[in-house]
Amino acid sequence: MSHQMFEITTHGAGLYEFTNQVGAWVAREGPLEAALTLIVQHTSASLLIQENADPEVQDDLQAYFNRLVPPTTNPSMAYLTHTYEGPDDMPAHIKSAMLPTTLTIPVISGRMCLGTWQGLYLFEHRTRSHVRQVLGLLR
Amino acid sequence: MSHQMFEITTHGAGLYEFTNQVGAWVAREGPLEAALTLIVQHTSASLLIQENADPEVQDDLQAYFNRLVPPTTNPSMAYLTHTYEGPDDMPAHIKSAMLPTTLTIPVISGRMCLGTWQGLYLFEHRTRSHVRQVLGLLR
Amino acid sequence: MSHQMFEITTHGAGLYEFTNQVGAWVAREGPLEAALTLIVQHTSASLLIQENADPEVQDDLQAYFNRLVPPTTNPSMAYLTHTYEGPDDMPAHIKSAMLPTTLTIPVISGRMCLGTWQGLYLFEHRTRSHVRQVLGLLR
Repeated sequence: MSHQMFEITTHGAGLYEFTNQVGAWVAREGPLEAALTLIVQHTSASLLIQENADPEVQDDLQAYFNRLVPPTTNPSMAYLTHTYEGPDDMPAHIKSAMLPTTLTIPVISGRMCLGTWQGLYLFEHRTRSHVRQVLGLLR
Repeated sequence: MSHQMFEITTHGAGLYEFTNQVGAWVAREGPLEAALTLIVQHTSASLLIQENADPEVQDDLQAYFNRLVPPTTNPSMAYLTHTYEGPDDMPAHIKSAMLPTTLTIPVISGRMCLGTWQGLYLFEHRTRSHVRQVLGLLR
Repeated sequence: MSHQMFEITTHGAGLYEFTNQVGAWVAREGPLEAALTLIVQHTSASLLIQENADPEVQDDLQAYFNRLVPPTTNPSMAYLTHTYEGPDDMPAHIKSAMLPTTLTIPVISGRMCLGTWQGLYLFEHRTRSHVRQVLGLLR
């Protein structure tokens, strides 16, 4: 049983892969069979397991969710009230409700059991730079 | 290892915070390192980790998801067929597919590792009052 | 502690229930208290806990998400770029971001603690047939 804090620096909205950082920590813990739980400790960023082969997928995901949940400068979002941190404030909370805050991944023989094309991402929803904390627990 | 059933009484759609009930149970179990799994045993309510500072966030979340998935009285939803429990029936199932049914949260030294602004919510999707069952497992 | 791979053959987009396969495996492992983690090892299919009483719910869920995330032949999706596997390629990735890739379910006395009306589904997002791998870990 072990835990580890990952800090992910973001420079604008988008997907940031951190598969290797987590995989290296899990490997150092030895050839165990375990459940790995990850939680992003913020309400304006998400965790995603997504395809890591073609970077167009990450761009398209961001484009889609920005259209589904546009900034509050968009007239269609004028009914929202929590806007004091700017036009990307409440949309970030909505995206963080819609996309995962926690993930649990089986670990067998010291390796995360992801599919061939699956990578681990932090999905940043805010425009300005942040340092995001993701806590991992091996259990 | 331990489990606990939480009953949350709801009076209409919206977010109901229950961070303190869960935190008190986890603290009573002692200073353990564990994974806490929660499941809502219904298909018309969800679990959310969300900001618990400004109540406007909760109102805005409900407003957004009600526009994304409006009642079946809305002409845009006329293609839905499962409507015998009323206009909020099938939209509640859709919201419960889109938002989490299960969450797993790391526990260290007997405390849930949530971020500073994160709280634990039941998101009720139905209009009439319900008693919702949320099962917690510490493992 | 134990793990098991489930293979689910799909013939087109839609929900495929596999509650019984998982429940039978969990029961064979004995009357344990555990956390069951499931992961679908693909980025174009999802896992859902949903109502298993009325099949109309499953049809309506598929109809809703197909309208929310239509094929890239739909003019509203013309901005998407990752389309080389066909018009259902990128929409499948979007749906797999929006709907769960992993689920964790409490197990008590050798039984999954699902609600009365809850079943376990693979949600296939691609049109052509696939064999989908879902890994289960009991821990």
